[in-house]
Amino acid sequence: MHQLDNKLPDSGADDILLVPAADIYDDNGVLRGSFLAHIGAAIADRDTLALERDVASLHQSEIGHLLEALLPDQRRALVELMGAAFDFTALTEVDDAIRMDIVDHLPNEQIAQAVQDLDSDDAVYILEDLDAEDRDEILAQLPFTERIRLRRALDYPEETAGRRMQTEFVAVPPFWTVGQTIDYMREDQNLPESFSQIFVIDPTFRLLGAIDLDRILRTKRVVKIEDIMHETRHAVPATMDQEEAAQIFEQYDLLSAAVVDENERLVGVLTIDDVVDVIQEEAEEDLMRLGGVGDEELSDSVLVASRSRIPWLLVNLVMAFVAASVIGLFDATIQQIVALAILMPIVAGMGGNAGSQTMTVTVRALATKDIDIYNAGRIIRREMGVGLLNGMIFATLIGLVAGSWFADPELGGIIAVSMAINLFVAALAGILVPLTLDRFGADPAVASAVFVTTITDVVGFFTFLGLATWWFGFL
Amino acid sequence: MHQLDNKLPDSGADDILLVPAADIYDDNGVLRGSFLAHIGAAIADRDTLALERDVASLHQSEIGHLLEALLPDQRRALVELMGAAFDFTALTEVDDAIRMDIVDHLPNEQIAQAVQDLDSDDAVYILEDLDAEDRDEILAQLPFTERIRLRRALDYPEETAGRRMQTEFVAVPPFWTVGQTIDYMREDQNLPESFSQIFVIDPTFRLLGAIDLDRILRTKRVVKIEDIMHETRHAVPATMDQEEAAQIFEQYDLLSAAVVDENERLVGVLTIDDVVDVIQEEAEEDLMRLGGVGDEELSDSVLVASRSRIPWLLVNLVMAFVAASVIGLFDATIQQIVALAILMPIVAGMGGNAGSQTMTVTVRALATKDIDIYNAGRIIRREMGVGLLNGMIFATLIGLVAGSWFADPELGGIIAVSMAINLFVAALAGILVPLTLDRFGADPAVASAVFVTTITDVVGFFTFLGLATWWFGFL
Repeated sequence: MHQLDNKLPDSGADDILLVPAADIYDDNGVLRGSFLAHIGAAIADRDTLALERDVASLHQSEIGHLLEALLPDQRRALVELMGAAFDFTALTEVDDAIRMDIVDHLPNEQIAQAVQDLDSDDAVYILEDLDAEDRDEILAQLPFTERIRLRRALDYPEETAGRRMQTEFVAVPPFWTVGQTIDYMREDQNLPESFSQIFVIDPTFRLLGAIDLDRILRTKRVVKIEDIMHETRHAVPATMDQEEAAQIFEQYDLLSAAVVDENERLVGVLTIDDVVDVIQEEAEEDLMRLGGVGDEELSDSVLVASRSRIPWLLVNLVMAFVAASVIGLFDATIQQIVALAILMPIVAGMGGNAGSQTMTVTVRALATKDIDIYNAGRIIRREMGVGLLNGMIFATLIGLVAGSWFADPELGGIIAVSMAINLFVAALAGILVPLTLDRFGADPAVASAVFVTTITDVVGFFTFLGLATWWFGFL
Repeated sequence: MHQLDNKLPDSGADDILLVPAADIYDDNGVLRGSFLAHIGAAIADRDTLALERDVASLHQSEIGHLLEALLPDQRRALVELMGAAFDFTALTEVDDAIRMDIVDHLPNEQIAQAVQDLDSDDAVYILEDLDAEDRDEILAQLPFTERIRLRRALDYPEETAGRRMQTEFVAVPPFWTVGQTIDYMREDQNLPESFSQIFVIDPTFRLLGAIDLDRILRTKRVVKIEDIMHETRHAVPATMDQEEAAQIFEQYDLLSAAVVDENERLVGVLTIDDVVDVIQEEAEEDLMRLGGVGDEELSDSVLVASRSRIPWLLVNLVMAFVAASVIGLFDATIQQIVALAILMPIVAGMGGNAGSQTMTVTVRALATKDIDIYNAGRIIRREMGVGLLNGMIFATLIGLVAGSWFADPELGGIIAVSMAINLFVAALAGILVPLTLDRFGADPAVASAVFVTTITDVVGFFTFLGLATWWFGFL
């Protein structure tokens, strides 16, 4: 009998000792150096047996981690040495650049052989980044039905449900009984590797409904399928954006959903594990865009990373010159009172910080659709309240500190007033800029930060230097 | 026969026309104003029948959206009017503040009645935020087994797998056959509402293994359970942090996982829908922390939101004074050349932007464990390369523009050199600050931004003003 704490399963006839998976990671979840050294040595010795024994037993994600930790030469050697024993699904777990590098070094015949054993969604994931010529050559070597299935998924645009779907599914006619359905599943050899739902279709493949597996198991054999199926309210059109599909999964707690073509014919199934990846990617995208970085990956080279970051820096540079020219308006005043030059970055910077707080909240709420016409007014009023309140608190604080630093209460008063104004403006900009961008169909995560900080810089410099110029009579 | 496009299901004996769910949202996924007005009118008229007809048929998440769109008085009236027809799982879909408000206004008897119908994870979600007195009173009114189950989950600390688990599960002994298991599921009335896995246990509830439902359906009736179960390598200790548990789900593409106590006895099951929520929360947390906001919710009041944002602004204010005092060192130089005051925010600001790009990439990579001892060195070198390259590009650019703006090539040269230095320092700070914080057990998302911008401000002001002072001979 198997036991939970029995980490070394009885390997039966062949006397190979499996590496227990939990042991390849240390307590921080990082691959152990000793394991990596062991695999590195096996690659150097071209010890195919050791690799098949210690790598083939790992989960695809563990092989993915291993590939990412190896050097590029070692990765390619590992895949080549393992041959048919290498699990290609591991390639869906690594950075794009690493996958491309490995696949580019493999003969098309080996790729064609490998993708036949994969679920169609994994096969598509690997094939979609290849150049058209290689892809066609690989597809040409596949059996007919396999080729048709992959082509169908590849024909849908990137980032749609059709691209992410698995084309293997279980479908039965409505007039079958539960008993017939169970017998069919016991006998058919071509079932998908795992599934949590079966679909009900008419002879033209039009989707009629779906049944969760637990429902089948609870129902007596004589009951008809059409009597226990539920309507598939959440069937996903193949052309639907993957992010939208992910939101349906999240909202309705789905494990899988039927994917249908424009005639409502069942063409595939979208599963929660792919959707989890999409959710992660989308959350990551917002974070990266707010931070001014695009679809960068850790494995990108210096040149690629540098190039991807230049546009944002360039836009910021232009905006920084705009803010600087506002300072230039008051050069005569600064020459008289250098303290203004010392204090002005505080006013502008605090505005930027407060604005980015409001903006972060707003961008996130837009992404999760938590902000809409019903609460937008209330949230704008709330942010104005926060801006007013925090403006007054920090105005008092900075007024006291700056006034005593330069032993000049008037200067303290001027910086206090401009700080209060700028924090209020920051709150307004922090909420209105992303809302406006969203309204006009632009991605608020990409452009909000530049607009908000430019507004707080310009308003900060202008109110502070302008007030001082007026008060001290330099006009 | 049901059809996909038949949105109005035949309601059978009772002649109630169901509101088709898809129709409550407009094309942007926002609740329709007409629907909201209709429900608002029904609440005002205390039209219980209309509410039961049009709200009770909605999915819990749709009722959640409805509650969030209603005014506080309307929400409480809706729950009160619907009584037992109100689906309490909808309360797990709304902001904490809204849930607390509704629950606080309900009699404990009604809550006790309602949570009995819920899955235990939903019941715990609603009970955990109540004050201890109310919670005890509600628990006291529950049947014995229900009470024990909920107590067990509530005894585990917040944000652990034990808190999030569902205590209803299907478990069978290893010597049963597939046929016996299916018969048991057909007859037992106390099965959980839905499940995707059954567990195998010994008489003391020790976990022996698990079987996915599709595996059961594919296997002949005579086969023994112990022959098809797989070892549950991924059983989750009840005390494990929910984020760690979510990472296991993600890595191994799990739909559900057994939760075990310290004696490896099965106490519950963690399901992917709860995990998806955890993944969302954790991604959101990083984004919010980088933006300087804590665990704020959209429904928080002005006072709550204001207070939660003050600490970050305060730390930034202190740091801004540090940067300002660096400018103060060079007041004599600024008085001679006011152009320096005009240009210095550009040098500091561009450093801040470049630093936050690197920092964003690093914080995200740390959160997803994509950065470790194997690639840290390579990534640090890459960021230094990017800093050097972009530093040179933007140094050239700003040198030319600033030099011609003030018709002073020497000033152009000085700003170019300080820009190159500051962008290189920004890259270093952007990667080393989060890595160091993480090394010492601090959350890099919380504190990185303040450190990085302080470093780029100080270095930007110091190199630019210092170089100018030295070059133009004011020392």
